[in-house]
Amino acid sequence: MATKFELPSPAVVVDLDIAERNIARVADLARQNGKKLRPHIKPHKSTYFARQQLAAGAQGITVAKISEAEVMAAHGITDILIAYSLVGDEKLARLKRLHERAQIVTTVDGLEVARGLATVGSTERPLPVLIEIDSGTHRGGCQPGQAALALAQQVRTFPSLHLQGLFTYGGNIYGSRNRAELAAHAAAEAGVLRATAALLEQNGIPVSVLSGGSTPATVVLDKLEGVTEIRPGNYVFFDVSGLNLGIATVNDCALRVLATVVSVPLPGYATIDAGSKALTSDPAERSQEYGYLVDLPDVHLVKLNEEHGYLRYDPAQRELHVGDRIEIIPNHACVVPNLSGVLYGVRGGKVEREIAVEARGKNY
Amino acid sequence: MATKFELPSPAVVVDLDIAERNIARVADLARQNGKKLRPHIKPHKSTYFARQQLAAGAQGITVAKISEAEVMAAHGITDILIAYSLVGDEKLARLKRLHERAQIVTTVDGLEVARGLATVGSTERPLPVLIEIDSGTHRGGCQPGQAALALAQQVRTFPSLHLQGLFTYGGNIYGSRNRAELAAHAAAEAGVLRATAALLEQNGIPVSVLSGGSTPATVVLDKLEGVTEIRPGNYVFFDVSGLNLGIATVNDCALRVLATVVSVPLPGYATIDAGSKALTSDPAERSQEYGYLVDLPDVHLVKLNEEHGYLRYDPAQRELHVGDRIEIIPNHACVVPNLSGVLYGVRGGKVEREIAVEARGKNY
Repeated sequence: MATKFELPSPAVVVDLDIAERNIARVADLARQNGKKLRPHIKPHKSTYFARQQLAAGAQGITVAKISEAEVMAAHGITDILIAYSLVGDEKLARLKRLHERAQIVTTVDGLEVARGLATVGSTERPLPVLIEIDSGTHRGGCQPGQAALALAQQVRTFPSLHLQGLFTYGGNIYGSRNRAELAAHAAAEAGVLRATAALLEQNGIPVSVLSGGSTPATVVLDKLEGVTEIRPGNYVFFDVSGLNLGIATVNDCALRVLATVVSVPLPGYATIDAGSKALTSDPAERSQEYGYLVDLPDVHLVKLNEEHGYLRYDPAQRELHVGDRIEIIPNHACVVPNLSGVLYGVRGGKVEREIAVEARGKNY
Repeated sequence: MATKFELPSPAVVVDLDIAERNIARVADLARQNGKKLRPHIKPHKSTYFARQQLAAGAQGITVAKISEAEVMAAHGITDILIAYSLVGDEKLARLKRLHERAQIVTTVDGLEVARGLATVGSTERPLPVLIEIDSGTHRGGCQPGQAALALAQQVRTFPSLHLQGLFTYGGNIYGSRNRAELAAHAAAEAGVLRATAALLEQNGIPVSVLSGGSTPATVVLDKLEGVTEIRPGNYVFFDVSGLNLGIATVNDCALRVLATVVSVPLPGYATIDAGSKALTSDPAERSQEYGYLVDLPDVHLVKLNEEHGYLRYDPAQRELHVGDRIEIIPNHACVVPNLSGVLYGVRGGKVEREIAVEARGKNY
């Protein structure tokens, strides 16, 4: 069996022991807190990890795009929340086909979206929907309170739609600087959902699902009062953002990019064969760098071109040589498998399996 | 024939008339200036555009990674410069196979790299190499002058290597603020190559190739004095960086991402279905935004999540609605096809063909 450093460089590896521990831990946390778990597949985009999450107790999965749902359904994973407003005839025709063969739930944040979705479901087989509430990111969603009530009343006029409840993405939690701020953001997100749910119920509209909660919220799950379903994604792998948020340690980070020093042009300057095409140019929370070098914390990954990573270090303290192998925790694990197409699952440093990223590039 | 706005959204389209004009123009410029043209395939990563470039007069192509060379060679494109230090047994074994069936040239910037490459060539079939010179980016390359001479003398001791000349990447030209600075950067890059070539020739080492020059240098080609071969890449498509550098107009930008407004959460706030997974989070030169909206220059793409683009505008001046179609020139065209896997070639707004990005994800 090959060791991880025998793989073609750069390679994206997943420490399977760490990933399995992460999957089990969040499933346990959800159970202990009485939440259903519907993990977002965005970090791994693979049926391999989706099946592990379901086996650990997830009730279904969450995806961002209908093309991702199509891939998962084609592989037999059929309880899917498409957490995205589906707009346009082309998307609606595809959703109709998917709705006929899978248990699809989707989100709606305005009347135009509702009108489109209403053409997908039927009175006999209504399309389940959640009203998306804008809990502060302003990236989408109906405003909470009266606007959401008005939309709920409109949605309920379509017999081909089945309003199950409310949904939000509390992305502002990624700005938290400590556990108290994590708790405050989670409580605020849950509060927005609960308040709007109460308003709907006062007006005779039943609300059975309150969907919220990302990976940072899993460490303060008791603050998600009233939330029935959580949708963490990143926790399978973690990354530099998780380290800097204080929600993960290096030993929790399952995804690593293995690279090679290919040049040492000047003292203190080295270049590796992993650039933005392997690591992405995404920033991490509270970092000016492009990844964390696991065994070389004094070496800084300060810049990326597409195929080159620029390392800087003190040449009085450290020598690097052409051929040295470098292990990197990426800034943002969610985007790395999408760039690679294949993940190498390793255990104890040995390559155990190749894991296909079947939903790679599915953004349409 | 479908129109471009009937494609699944988001879609990456290439205006074929613009791309063909760009390809012809740079081929003509190279001819007029007596330079060989060896375009870098990094923006398109496709045999379709590589063949167009060869048909227009390119002598061969440039790639960054051996996996890209393998893909191109498998499709019959066999005159290839791998502009990258190839390091490690695994890479060298692959290079040996490729060298036996294609005309491969590669770069070397240190003795360790030379020793490895020497195991690939043979006395009967030496491996052609160029010495990479660091002309100021410090991302790789031997230092110019005496260090390069010493390396050249070492390379010449390996009968399995054939030293053809010198190579550099003058990436600092992307910092130019006007044509005078473009000219100065190009002249400096050529000057570094010429000075080191003169030193080698004074020491009895023939230098037949001086390889340099990126897309920005094509507008000041007369300043690349002595350079025998240029390697522009981005010019096929252009992008916001090219607009901001003043080397392209909107009508020169062949690559566009077509997206759809999926939410209008508040007045002046809209969200499109193209995020960093379609557009990349790469910055552009002198821009704080994530792309240029072709028909809506007063609307700003201020932030990306993976599947969401955040638009901001003055609601007193502009209305956007769910379902509106948006055409975006990306910040950095070179990374967009790699994310998509398929490009739609359009002419006059009609979809003429699908173009496979065969070398997508080949970074190893």
